[in-house]
Amino acid sequence: MTNSPASIITLTTDFGHKGPFVGIMKGVILARLPQARIVDLTHEVHAHWPAEAGFWLAHSYKNFPAGSVHVAVVDPGVGTERDILGCRHDGHIFLAPDNGILSDVLGGNSPDEVYRLSKGLVDQINPGNISSTFHGRDIFAPLAAEISAGNILIENIGEKTRDIVPSLVEQAEHIGSKLQGKIVALDSFGNLISNVSHTELKQITNPLVICGGRQLRLQDTYGRSQPGELLALINSFDMLEIARSEGSASEYLGLGLGAPITISAG
Amino acid sequence: MTNSPASIITLTTDFGHKGPFVGIMKGVILARLPQARIVDLTHEVHAHWPAEAGFWLAHSYKNFPAGSVHVAVVDPGVGTERDILGCRHDGHIFLAPDNGILSDVLGGNSPDEVYRLSKGLVDQINPGNISSTFHGRDIFAPLAAEISAGNILIENIGEKTRDIVPSLVEQAEHIGSKLQGKIVALDSFGNLISNVSHTELKQITNPLVICGGRQLRLQDTYGRSQPGELLALINSFDMLEIARSEGSASEYLGLGLGAPITISAG
Amino acid sequence: MTNSPASIITLTTDFGHKGPFVGIMKGVILARLPQARIVDLTHEVHAHWPAEAGFWLAHSYKNFPAGSVHVAVVDPGVGTERDILGCRHDGHIFLAPDNGILSDVLGGNSPDEVYRLSKGLVDQINPGNISSTFHGRDIFAPLAAEISAGNILIENIGEKTRDIVPSLVEQAEHIGSKLQGKIVALDSFGNLISNVSHTELKQITNPLVICGGRQLRLQDTYGRSQPGELLALINSFDMLEIARSEGSASEYLGLGLGAPITISAG
Repeated sequence: MTNSPASIITLTTDFGHKGPFVGIMKGVILARLPQARIVDLTHEVHAHWPAEAGFWLAHSYKNFPAGSVHVAVVDPGVGTERDILGCRHDGHIFLAPDNGILSDVLGGNSPDEVYRLSKGLVDQINPGNISSTFHGRDIFAPLAAEISAGNILIENIGEKTRDIVPSLVEQAEHIGSKLQGKIVALDSFGNLISNVSHTELKQITNPLVICGGRQLRLQDTYGRSQPGELLALINSFDMLEIARSEGSASEYLGLGLGAPITISAG
Repeated sequence: MTNSPASIITLTTDFGHKGPFVGIMKGVILARLPQARIVDLTHEVHAHWPAEAGFWLAHSYKNFPAGSVHVAVVDPGVGTERDILGCRHDGHIFLAPDNGILSDVLGGNSPDEVYRLSKGLVDQINPGNISSTFHGRDIFAPLAAEISAGNILIENIGEKTRDIVPSLVEQAEHIGSKLQGKIVALDSFGNLISNVSHTELKQITNPLVICGGRQLRLQDTYGRSQPGELLALINSFDMLEIARSEGSASEYLGLGLGAPITISAG
Repeated sequence: MTNSPASIITLTTDFGHKGPFVGIMKGVILARLPQARIVDLTHEVHAHWPAEAGFWLAHSYKNFPAGSVHVAVVDPGVGTERDILGCRHDGHIFLAPDNGILSDVLGGNSPDEVYRLSKGLVDQINPGNISSTFHGRDIFAPLAAEISAGNILIENIGEKTRDIVPSLVEQAEHIGSKLQGKIVALDSFGNLISNVSHTELKQITNPLVICGGRQLRLQDTYGRSQPGELLALINSFDMLEIARSEGSASEYLGLGLGAPITISAG
């Protein structure tokens, strides 16, 4: 029994808040599982960018109770031949298109319990109602509700698979004595979040962070700097981040997703 | 007994997310009905544009369990003589200002069970506390809670009426052999959603869609096109939509609400 | 017993909707208190601007049931020596950084039941897991859950204090026969909300409102004006507001937070 009695289902999409799309998914879930506790993780993933969804989900899910069902619908391939995957990992259940999101969640872990949703089950849980453009409503929401309710076990959604689309979140690289990373996510403050982990950073002696032409030393938190000052810090996800005190590093530096960040010993 | 034990109440407004207005409505509901399940449909309806609220609600409510109470507060006439309507339709309850929203929900159906909220009931459910600018808090939220709780029946909120403000969502028109429609809603991806239904479109042989000076053939889904390509498709609400693969058709074409769309036999 | 069986917890932050930060706080709360009813008040407080959070919270909390726990995390000082306060006021519980937010909630009331969160309790509720950048996740969410659950009483979180950071919301001033105020909050419609209360305004005979170079008389509501017309009114929080009928006063006048507003007898 892996399902929590709390019946928590989280939603991560790029649907934004304009239009009823997220609300409709919740209606579908509640129609099947009235006691579901549905939590929005974020619906402002950069549109059509599964890597950001995978990054956020990988760094968020542990804050929810074991048994939670996490649904990520960032799905530029909706209606094409791309598959839908389900996965049990670390006591949680994940549902996402096969576009790299689950690989982010698994990190370096072996995909021991990843299953490829069968066409048969799709037809069974929502017969005759599968659009080619809104699988969040037609497949993901009903499936999440049935799994959270314990009516469908994740290992029964289809064949086990190990051959899944790899993570689209690039890994930081060691180039000589330097570490070369990228910005992989932004938050609403305009903080630039990189793919360089604390563990990787600690391998560099006296690290000097170079981003947007600036050379920065690590600091502890935002609040010790002067307003407007740029700073590099290890954020609450244990990732290297460039911030601007009481401002937006992204706007100030003119940088966004994909921007390079270099760490050298200094 | 038309009320669901699930006590689902959906909210559709143009309040946006800045400020506590939606949260306040939820507080008022929960103070009266602690077990209410409140779902945001959308709060980013184009400001003061009831037609968009009506369009979304009409295409969304069926995804919720019968007995749900749907509250739409897009209400440029708040505090004036405009009335508030309540309606039972298709097993659901709807509350909205008399500004066309309920006509959208009813579609072509006869308004058999539409009621005009009486001043007496307003005074009774929230005596002495009716502002002239925030009826979402002062009238709609308390009324929705009492109806969802089963304390007030929709047929008891006031006189039955058939004379309600018609839909402000324009209908597509047949002009000669062509079908002339308009864009009536946008989503966060920048997809342009028209008032042309699949049923209407099927009456045109080999339809050619003309929008923003482009001539487009119907496609099945977003993901089969090259990134950046414009496409016309029947969306998940069975309406004709102009999209741009992995981009924003609205931004690319410079079009928004009210833009014309023509379908000719071709 | 001050905790409601409804277990309502409201969240007010400047985190925006990009990224999983608010969702993570909800996960932490639900992991400790599965029956919590979590309501978003707003997450679009102007970044790093506690005064707006305090203003909204002070004008919103009474709409929730007594016993609700209100958490405000607008916290530019996170990770520095700033303290966290807890407070019982008017039958509600409030948690916020010591940066003026609670002073807004208290208004002119004496801080009889304000407590300074002890380091010992922080270590006890979330040992070894306190980041220096995300106290919403690491301190506020666990503390709110434990307080709402009744496991921790507000008077036991630390020492009682009366020496708290005063409100950053400026008070309107009488200058000669005039009342001089400021814009202290904006909503999504672009309405400009001032720090001038109805009570203060009533002291001026036949008030003439001057803002952005315009002279305005008080009106009752938005809907009686011509679209595009500027109007001054007492809003649903009993505060003086400048609005533009079916438009944005903020955009039209080019005014925002801090803009002056003058009321003279006229």
